Amino acid sequence: METKNVFKQIPADLTEELFENILGNESFRLERIISKGHATPKDQWYDQKDDEWILLLQGSAGLRIEKQEIITLRQGDYILLPAGLKHRVEWTDHESETIWLALHFSK
Amino acid sequence: METKNVFKQIPADLTEELFENILGNESFRLERIISKGHATPKDQWYDQKDDEWILLLQGSAGLRIEKQEIITLRQGDYILLPAGLKHRVEWTDHESETIWLALHFSK
Repeated sequence: METKNVFKQIPADLTEELFENILGNESFRLERIISKGHATPKDQWYDQKDDEWILLLQGSAGLRIEKQEIITLRQGDYILLPAGLKHRVEWTDHESETIWLALHFSK
Repeated sequence: METKNVFKQIPADLTEELFENILGNESFRLERIISKGHATPKDQWYDQKDDEWILLLQGSAGLRIEKQEIITLRQGDYILLPAGLKHRVEWTDHESETIWLALHFSK
């Protein structure tokens, strides 16, 4: 059986935020996201039809949920974002990679 | 929205290995497991009807898959264990907590 490592195989060029599927089926999708200074574009919000559970594995990020204060996420923090809850990433660490797991699933 | 942290709220007493559900539905179950020196009981194997994806978040462990060498898992390593693939945990770190995420899912 093949093992991989969630902290490895990070591309040197992170001009674009990286989204990679790890596994999934009809019911869910598990994704690794690598950010480095990225944020959701100005005035844009994620408004998703699926629930999303996110875990910050490395780095730090500011997450804004509509009509709420920014939540600072640090290593190990996780949060469930129910479908339809508007949210955006205000900032991610500029100095080092922020690595996320995101589990998207339908009810 | 409530954030939690996968590295926190670790009970002082880890005489028993800890299995905690984080979230799930009819299709999947996401679990945190905390081991400290635990291993699968002698001569026992996990033989599961669901697929299982495991990610070692902290610590280290020896995973044996039937008829294969022991694989040492370290921080960040992940592996997919298909349904019916017999496997067992031969050892986990005695000195500190080994924290796993396990995603159980059906096809």
